[in-house]
Parts: sequence; structure tokens; C-alpha cells
Amino acid sequence: MATACSSSEPLWAGGAPSVGLSFRLEATDGRARAGVLTTPRGEVRTPVFMPVGTQATVKGTAPEELAELGVAMVLANTYHLHLRPGEDVVAHLGGLHRFMHWDGPILTDSGGFQVFSLSGLRRITEEGVSFRSHLDGSSRFLSPESAVAIQRALGSDIAMCLDECTPYPAEYSVAECSMQLSLRWAARCKAAWEASVAGQGALFGIVQGSTYPELRRRSAEETVAIGFDGYAVGGLSVGEPKEAMLEAAAVALAALPGDAPRYLMGVGTPEDLVEGVRLGADMFDCVMPTRNARNGMLFTAGGRVVIKNARYLRDASPVEDNCGCYTCRNFSRAYLRHLFVSREILAMRLLTLHNLSYYMRLMSQLREAVVRGEIEAFARRFHARRAGGDTDEA
Amino acid sequence: MATACSSSEPLWAGGAPSVGLSFRLEATDGRARAGVLTTPRGEVRTPVFMPVGTQATVKGTAPEELAELGVAMVLANTYHLHLRPGEDVVAHLGGLHRFMHWDGPILTDSGGFQVFSLSGLRRITEEGVSFRSHLDGSSRFLSPESAVAIQRALGSDIAMCLDECTPYPAEYSVAECSMQLSLRWAARCKAAWEASVAGQGALFGIVQGSTYPELRRRSAEETVAIGFDGYAVGGLSVGEPKEAMLEAAAVALAALPGDAPRYLMGVGTPEDLVEGVRLGADMFDCVMPTRNARNGMLFTAGGRVVIKNARYLRDASPVEDNCGCYTCRNFSRAYLRHLFVSREILAMRLLTLHNLSYYMRLMSQLREAVVRGEIEAFARRFHARRAGGDTDEA
Repeated sequence: MATACSSSEPLWAGGAPSVGLSFRLEATDGRARAGVLTTPRGEVRTPVFMPVGTQATVKGTAPEELAELGVAMVLANTYHLHLRPGEDVVAHLGGLHRFMHWDGPILTDSGGFQVFSLSGLRRITEEGVSFRSHLDGSSRFLSPESAVAIQRALGSDIAMCLDECTPYPAEYSVAECSMQLSLRWAARCKAAWEASVAGQGALFGIVQGSTYPELRRRSAEETVAIGFDGYAVGGLSVGEPKEAMLEAAAVALAALPGDAPRYLMGVGTPEDLVEGVRLGADMFDCVMPTRNARNGMLFTAGGRVVIKNARYLRDASPVEDNCGCYTCRNFSRAYLRHLFVSREILAMRLLTLHNLSYYMRLMSQLREAVVRGEIEAFARRFHARRAGGDTDEA
Repeated sequence: MATACSSSEPLWAGGAPSVGLSFRLEATDGRARAGVLTTPRGEVRTPVFMPVGTQATVKGTAPEELAELGVAMVLANTYHLHLRPGEDVVAHLGGLHRFMHWDGPILTDSGGFQVFSLSGLRRITEEGVSFRSHLDGSSRFLSPESAVAIQRALGSDIAMCLDECTPYPAEYSVAECSMQLSLRWAARCKAAWEASVAGQGALFGIVQGSTYPELRRRSAEETVAIGFDGYAVGGLSVGEPKEAMLEAAAVALAALPGDAPRYLMGVGTPEDLVEGVRLGADMFDCVMPTRNARNGMLFTAGGRVVIKNARYLRDASPVEDNCGCYTCRNFSRAYLRHLFVSREILAMRLLTLHNLSYYMRLMSQLREAVVRGEIEAFARRFHARRAGGDTDEA
């Protein structure tokens, strides 16, 4: 941490949120919400799960398949696309949507998380973060302003502020300094966003504060004071205990305005999605459904299926009865096991489609439960049902 | 070669060809033919190219995509499926078609070629071939009878006789002995085929004889004397010069009956397909379109495209103008290059679809040229047009 911990003056004064995004609630049930996020590229029913398209592709899928699964919105990684092929290339080719042939809304992260998790030799200053590319070792620098500029060039529908992802565990004072740096960067991101040639799109602020409820509350309040189109809760699912994660998320979410969308970043397991919705989050992303699929781990209502297990050698049934995804409609567990152990490309694809189908169905069920005022009963049934499944998890 | 070279008595006496397959010619142009192969699973217009589905999947594709590209028939590898998951597993799951979700006809090879090219410590006797699995080193034995039984269990529509793939180069006497062994095995395959519980399907004989025209002629005549539903020319594209390959193919094809389908095994490049059709072959298979795609090499009417080349970094055009495949309709060369250098699964898939589309279109054009009596003009134009393209081939 090369940054002095300082300043309590207002970080931002005035300026209306960007145009291009609106959010309305359709129902609430306790803290849980069902809403509609309206973007220039269509409506997104919330709570929504966004599959991760790190390198401008949701690994193993084609865009039409995502649409068929009910995916409304995807996430792309600014860090990866900045390094390769470069936002100038993407812009030259008409922006990210045309580049990857995805017409729906795209949320881009700021690149900060990957700088902290993937790159070597990073150095944080007030100005921004220096790092080395994990691809070629080249020296790079990311600032709040450049993070906004890159996301603008990509043509993001929802851009995220650059923040410092506080490592876990962090002492209170370290977490506080880090949170305050993120707030100053957030103000600079907003200024850069409003100064930039406005395309369509919106900018979200990010609440930090590690696992300290008091810091989470302050971070939320001060981020809201700056004023964004929506608010994310960041810096969770980074190694902290589940209870600490949920408590920090709960405090942060409760401190955010009811009329703006709330995004719980990098979350999570199916169980986490259920809890996140109960706590009032509207948006989620995670590599878990796609990454676990590539490792042969499948989600089902009855628990997890590790497809390589010998018990599936002659199993003619689909991964999940009544699933309805392309994989379950047409292929047996035995065939999927064969493809997986044979390291066939089609395995990655079929397993990914199923896991995304599972996630989409879960989100749809969660929304329905909120609309019916049955989220608590749904959550109880959900946790009880998922006691089964394989234990040799990938 | 543990086999004594012996015997000139008739190898087979009587027995009608299997039911389930018929072939009719619709047009000829010189030696080139346009026909229709009628199988219990539908009609196949010839000349036909069969993509290779080694492990019960044409790598990188889903069955519906193959159908959309106009693929009528695929090839699956008996050797691979015998070792994993085992033909008993495939049979338990309803046969190869249901297993891999492909409703069209499937041709299976005998397994012999892979025994010779992939496995270690093989030993050939009159009875068959002993070898070690390339997967786990286990000892295995393949005979004409077991090759037929495995293909029956898989539910093949067109099964192939077990033959010895004569190594190249081979002295005349070695090639002759090998050819005669293949003939004796062919007779045993036919006997086993007719003695087995007949499902639908047909059995093809295979002409061997290395690059010796006299051996190719004799092998063809004696294979025809045994009598099969169709005839393949095997043992080519194994390292011999192009001219020797074409001469051997020409002699063998000319010695085969006009009313049976002729299959030029393992061929080949687009140029080879044009020449094969000119010489009177009706069926082809090769891993080239799929394997080269995975290595980033694309076929186009204007020559080959090596997608990783830096010249495509900002290239907004499709792989091939007027192609019409899913890849060319929706994605730029720049995006494909990005996916390929990022080692994304979607790259393998999109590049494979294009190459198969190219192969299917070429076969369709060849058939049309035969029907119009313009095969020679087509071949001349084809070879002239393909002078361009990238030279750094994958």
C-alpha cells in the first residue's frame, strides 16, 4: 500500500446519473426483490445471473445458445480485453457486442480485480495501479480514468469503477485505507465517465470494506453520496468464511438505495445466490457454472454430479431429469462421461450448457418466489433438497 | 510379418451381399460419378465426404450443426470406441447413433488402421493382430471376426473389413504377402458378417497393394470375387508421393464394379478430393478439415488462411466471402484470431464449422459438375483458383 490514508471532504458534488439505464421494482419479499433493469439493449429481469465471458466469449458457448438458455446479460473482463486484443481493436471492429456477436447488454468489470489476482509486480499509488501483463510481462498502468476509457471503448452497457480489491484478511486500518482509496477512485471514475464522449451505458460504484460491517456501511453511504446508476458490493468471495461474507454483504446491501440495482460481484455458488437474493441483491456473476462444467462438475437440483465417476459409465439417464436444456434433452450421462474422459471439446460445451441452464432456472425460480412472497419457504426447500449428490467434487 | 505367404484357392464361394444398402448412379462424366447411396438411415448423395468422429463426436461440433452443414454421413473409429467406452457400453446405450445423437448413417472403420498407427507392440499372425492399447497398455487382440463383431455391436451402417495396412514403402513381395493376408481376412470378415445376427448395415471390402499397380488390380479383382456391398481403396495417403497415390487409386478404382459404391479411405486435401472424384471415387473421409481447423488453418476458395497471422488482427471480414456458414455469417477474422490466440474453446468450434462447410460445398460443387458433364473444366478452374492464401501453414 503506497497510498496515504487521508481526506474526509466530499468526494463528489453534483452531476446526474448517466442516461441509458433504469430500474424498477416489481415485487419485494422481505429484503428480496424482483425488478426489471431497462438497458438500451433490452430489459433484464432481476435477480439476474450474468455468465462470465472473460475473453469476449462465455467459454464453450455460442451466443445463440446463451440466448436460448435465457441469459439476458453477460460480463466481460476489461483486464483481459485490454491486454488482448486491446480495446482499440475491439472499437475498430464496432465494439464488444459486434465483436463477440452478442446483442444483449454487457457489463464490464474495471480490470482491477484481475490486476490484483493475475498480474505480477503490481504497485498501487494514489494515481492508479502499475502492473505487469500476465501474458507478456509488459509494464502497464491502470487508473480510474483509463479504466473508464477502456470500458467506453469496449462499448460496455454497464461499466464498473476501478477499485482496490482489499486482500483478505486485512486489518481494520488497512481495510479502511483501502476503502477510502476506492472511494477517491470512484469519484474520479465518475468525473471521467461524465467527461467522456457519452455513448449509451451506465456506471456503477463499488462498495468495499472487507469483512468489517462498519466499513461496509460507510463505504456504501459514501459511494451513494457520489451517486451512480447502480451499486456493487465487491471484495467478497476472496477467502473469507461464508458467514463473514454474508454479513458484510447484508450490511452493504441494506445501506444501498432501494431504487437502484444492486450487484453482488463474483457470487457465487447456487447456495450463495439464494442467500444473496434473500439479502436484496439483484445482479450476480461467477465463473463457477462454466469453470466447474469444464472440470466435469455439474449442478442439479439433487446435488452435484461429478461426471467422470465410474457410476455413470452405463448411465442412460440425462444429467438432470426435467432439465430441458440441449444437453439433457439429447445426451446420456454415459455419453457425457465418455466425452469428458476422452477430453473432447464437445464435453466442455455440453456440460457448460447444462450448468448455465441450471443457474438460469434457479434465478427464474428465485424471482418467481419473490413475486409470490415465498422466498423464505423457497430457500428452506432449496437447502434441504441439495443434501445429495457426488462428494468427489472437481 | 509373421504370416506365411500362401494359397491361391478361392477365398469365398457364394453368399449374397447384405441387405440394407443400395447404390444407383445418376450421372457419369468420364470416370467421375454422381450417385445416391440409399441406407436404412436415409439417402446419401455421392460423391460424399464423411467427417471423422473418432470418439463418437466430430471434434468441436454438435450433431445438429453437422446436419445444417449438409453432412449426410459420418465416420467413427472402431479402435477408439472399442478401447473406450467399449462396444458393450455403446450397445447397452442403444448403439452408436443414439449414444452420439446422430440419426444419419455412420460408417465405422475396422480398427486396423489405428492398431497399426497408434498402438505399440503389435504382432500380426494369420489369426489377427495383437497389440497394446495406447490408453492403458493393456494387451488386446483384433481378428477379422472380432472386428466385425465390434462394428455390429456399435450398430454401424457400413462396416469395414479388417485389413493389414501395408507400411510405406514396402517391397513388392512384402506388399503382395500383406495384400493376400488382407484378402484372406476379407473372406473371414464376410463369413463372420453373414453368420452374425444381422442388423441393418453393409460390409465393405478393402483393396490393398501398396503403390504397385499390378497388386492393386489383383487385390481389387479378388476382393470383388469375394463380393461386398461396396469397395474401399485403403493404404493410401500413408507417406507415398502424390503421383503414386493417385496412380494406385486410379488402378484400383478402375478395377471395381461400376454398380457398387467406391470409397477412397483417408483422402484427403481439397485437391485430392477433386482428383479422387475425377478417378471415380464416391466416398471420402479425412481428419484434415477438423484437425486443421483446430490448428488454426482454414480452407477457402482463394487458398488457405492461417488465422493466427498478425494480418488478421483488425480484419473485419469473414473467413470467406459468400460462405454462408454460421462462422462466416456472424464472426470476423479478427474475432476468430482473438479466440484462437486466446485458446478459447469457441475457436475450435467456429473454425471447424467453417472448414466442414468448405468441404461440404466442394463436394456439392463436384457433384454438380459431374451432373453437368463439366468435371474437367471444374477441376482446371479449381486448381488455378487455389494458388493464393497464407503460406505459413499450421
